[in-house]
Amino acid sequence: MSNAYDKAHELKEALAETQEFKSLYDLHRQIDADDIAKKMLENFRKLQLDLQQKQMQGVQISEEEAQQAQQQFELVSQHELISKLMDAEQRLSVIITDLNKIITEPLERIYGEPPQEQ
Amino acid sequence: MSNAYDKAHELKEALAETQEFKSLYDLHRQIDADDIAKKMLENFRKLQLDLQQKQMQGVQISEEEAQQAQQQFELVSQHELISKLMDAEQRLSVIITDLNKIITEPLERIYGEPPQEQ
Ligand SMILES: [Ca+2]
Ligand SMILES: [Ca+2]
Repeated sequence: MSNAYDKAHELKEALAETQEFKSLYDLHRQIDADDIAKKMLENFRKLQLDLQQKQMQGVQISEEEAQQAQQQFELVSQHELISKLMDAEQRLSVIITDLNKIITEPLERIYGEPPQEQ
Repeated sequence: MSNAYDKAHELKEALAETQEFKSLYDLHRQIDADDIAKKMLENFRKLQLDLQQKQMQGVQISEEEAQQAQQQFELVSQHELISKLMDAEQRLSVIITDLNKIITEPLERIYGEPPQEQ
């Protein structure tokens, strides 16, 4: 048990040392220091979160909202720092998903294979 | 990076060696070999899943459904093996939540503290 906690701490350190984490950390700091980029990203995140919450609650998203989200996405994608940040988030997210799959493998011996994602 | 994957495999092994995992594994096998317990547990899981899906979709749960769930819960709680299994699941779930908190600590350096749970 305490060994599992020790191993989790070692994994945490290894994760923080990955190029993917370091790059995300660095991009986040650059955006934080850039008021326009920061505001653009905040607005985009807020819009995304609103839409996600609606979807989770089964609320129909209007054509107008979908269009607005698409436009905002195109806008932020054209901002180099934000675009790089979103790529870096995607890469780190893949790693964390992989790590979680590895760690929870023992549960498959109990519950069987997890349902296929996406 | 490959170091993070190595560490995840080490953590997986450590998790599989915990008393909590072994106990859950053992209880699951015992229930699997007991047709009545297995069926009871399956029915209960199915009911739980139905209610969870309704809640996630924002569908109001009827008084009757809530009562039925409560009755089923009391029924399975009185079954010694199932009751032990649910306790063991709860204990392992606490550990896995703790491990995940540790592993994702580096992300707090980027996104700040996660919102308080529950
Ligand atoms: Ca600033
Ligand atoms: Ca059987």
